Amino acid sequence: MAAPVTQEQDTVRVEVDDATARVVLTAARRRNPLSVATMRALTAGLREVSATEGVRVIVIAAEGPAFSAGHDLSEMVDRTLAEEREVFAVCTEMMRAVHDVPQPVIAAVQGMAVAAGCQLVATADLAIAADHAVFGTPGVKIGLFCSTPMVAVSRAIGRKRAMQLLLTGRTIDAATAVEWGLINEAVPADALEARVAELAQQVADASGATLRIGKEAFYRQIDLSEDEAYAEMSEVMATNAMTCDAQEGMSAFLEKRQPVWQHR
Amino acid sequence: MAAPVTQEQDTVRVEVDDATARVVLTAARRRNPLSVATMRALTAGLREVSATEGVRVIVIAAEGPAFSAGHDLSEMVDRTLAEEREVFAVCTEMMRAVHDVPQPVIAAVQGMAVAAGCQLVATADLAIAADHAVFGTPGVKIGLFCSTPMVAVSRAIGRKRAMQLLLTGRTIDAATAVEWGLINEAVPADALEARVAELAQQVADASGATLRIGKEAFYRQIDLSEDEAYAEMSEVMATNAMTCDAQEGMSAFLEKRQPVWQHR
Amino acid sequence: MAAPVTQEQDTVRVEVDDATARVVLTAARRRNPLSVATMRALTAGLREVSATEGVRVIVIAAEGPAFSAGHDLSEMVDRTLAEEREVFAVCTEMMRAVHDVPQPVIAAVQGMAVAAGCQLVATADLAIAADHAVFGTPGVKIGLFCSTPMVAVSRAIGRKRAMQLLLTGRTIDAATAVEWGLINEAVPADALEARVAELAQQVADASGATLRIGKEAFYRQIDLSEDEAYAEMSEVMATNAMTCDAQEGMSAFLEKRQPVWQHR
Repeated sequence: MAAPVTQEQDTVRVEVDDATARVVLTAARRRNPLSVATMRALTAGLREVSATEGVRVIVIAAEGPAFSAGHDLSEMVDRTLAEEREVFAVCTEMMRAVHDVPQPVIAAVQGMAVAAGCQLVATADLAIAADHAVFGTPGVKIGLFCSTPMVAVSRAIGRKRAMQLLLTGRTIDAATAVEWGLINEAVPADALEARVAELAQQVADASGATLRIGKEAFYRQIDLSEDEAYAEMSEVMATNAMTCDAQEGMSAFLEKRQPVWQHR
Repeated sequence: MAAPVTQEQDTVRVEVDDATARVVLTAARRRNPLSVATMRALTAGLREVSATEGVRVIVIAAEGPAFSAGHDLSEMVDRTLAEEREVFAVCTEMMRAVHDVPQPVIAAVQGMAVAAGCQLVATADLAIAADHAVFGTPGVKIGLFCSTPMVAVSRAIGRKRAMQLLLTGRTIDAATAVEWGLINEAVPADALEARVAELAQQVADASGATLRIGKEAFYRQIDLSEDEAYAEMSEVMATNAMTCDAQEGMSAFLEKRQPVWQHR
Repeated sequence: MAAPVTQEQDTVRVEVDDATARVVLTAARRRNPLSVATMRALTAGLREVSATEGVRVIVIAAEGPAFSAGHDLSEMVDRTLAEEREVFAVCTEMMRAVHDVPQPVIAAVQGMAVAAGCQLVATADLAIAADHAVFGTPGVKIGLFCSTPMVAVSRAIGRKRAMQLLLTGRTIDAATAVEWGLINEAVPADALEARVAELAQQVADASGATLRIGKEAFYRQIDLSEDEAYAEMSEVMATNAMTCDAQEGMSAFLEKRQPVWQHR
């Protein structure tokens, strides 16, 4: 069940299958470059599926050997500053959309994810990769330091490791990406789809209302001081506890039965 | 040598043995739920032992198969918003007390630590667990996202891993908790007590005045920008260097002898 | 090719070899104590080589069995508060210089790095150690908590692990330091020099202008909220893309040829 959402039907495809939506990069032969049009289509796809009744988890996937090789460089040669700015404004809007949609976003990384492609993986709430996938921020090698990717990457893996990726431009393999906390798990390539589906199902078993509260709260607290974070999160939890799904969930737990969610 | 501190003698016990104090959760059969009364007793216990002459390190331990299964859900069903707020206000006060007492706090985790129980482990300055212990934030499964636990947990283990715990509700084992930096060490269950005692002794060998300066400084600097942190910590170290225990410690080091602390 | 830069020629030596500069601690027999004079010489050495035409990467190395045992305690006994303050002001200025010089700084750690020595390793952009090196913040044992080292160390390795080093004063080995992200890599002692040279060369292959943009941007964004970081980094990347080295690098990539940098 697939429905193209924009004119960019060649580079982004959107699929909804019950509680799980997939936004898929489809420019396989070109290694899924994140052109301005593709980034706009991906952002629109995320927003579209996030507004679709019943969707509780979103998977970002890609076709072909690479997940994404990053920006479309042909769009960045011989351009004006205004045009360069547009590339990064559109890119940042896409990354923000990953955090802003209320559903958890899982990156399913079937191959190389570098530069803005690596940033997209770092930005996703969860990520699973095929064990042959590689990750990196090679911009330094072409004179264009990966300064926006490093916002997400340095917050995911820490300073020394981020600097290693950024300053050498070398990639790391999937096992190392797991060890560093860039992704959650690496699996054999032929197990990727099933494992992502399983993880998506685990997430989708929850109440959609609860996921929405939790994800929004996560990104609200992550940059606050601990004191500020507690002040805000105490209120989030108190009001969460008053919702009918929490009341049902707690009652079901105490009564040793399965909960029935009202707000999927 | 044990002395009950509050009316909650059934759920929290306080023990002081020379330089080491222990605050112990004792509702073993009920998996040590963090009821409002228990959290108040634990907070009072921490404050009491921290004010006790000669105590230089505090251990939070628990009896029974579980360290703590988190909040007492029976206190959170069919309540007013004011009552829900009280639960999280009292909980946050307990977590702050762990950071505010001047002595280092070690969590001795003999079994499952989930939800607010996991938060307590993440909040402790140090943590050692039995190798069969598991850790997690399963609130999502009962409709009550672990939004206050995630403040401590996301600051301990980073984004992707925190999201994994929060969104799936699945637990991790003790070895994984070590790998992720949630705890410092996992040991066989029958070695836990001895290893915690050994670690407590290592900490307690230090000057109490120095530990007090250091712990207070740690939490003061951790949320600051690096520049602000250096401005404050330079002053902390300069004044620390003027204390008689630092002067004694440096002199002893230069003279290749053991220091004799004035302020234990 | 070695040129002493200050009167502290006995404790710091500066060498420039094409694109790589080395600032070397040379008080080998005394385990390279960071006296005020040595810290000033190291800071001056960093600034001197950073201003040298063609230098694209800086290595901080040390002679003898220890990288550095930290501050010179003999300078901190029986001093006035003003004198103690000077020690930490000069130390903090040195750490800031490591971040402020536009070239990436690699710590080549041939032996024990503790207290301010460990801080220097934590502060360096990249670090490679001999596999017998050890790391720690043992100040607590001499009554002088490592409060300024913890600024860098806690930001590199996280809370629980930083607390372990700080509260116990115990050291960790090089393999653990890699696992915790304190250093990038541990190699056999006799391979250290070659591996550092190789890493330095990888970094130095880049455009100096690009490295300068990237390193400055990294430390500018690291303490910001994610939203603020993206706002600043989007502009950094847009203007970076307009530079001639980025235009050359992107064109070379699209044309499948090696780039030729104008600004080495």
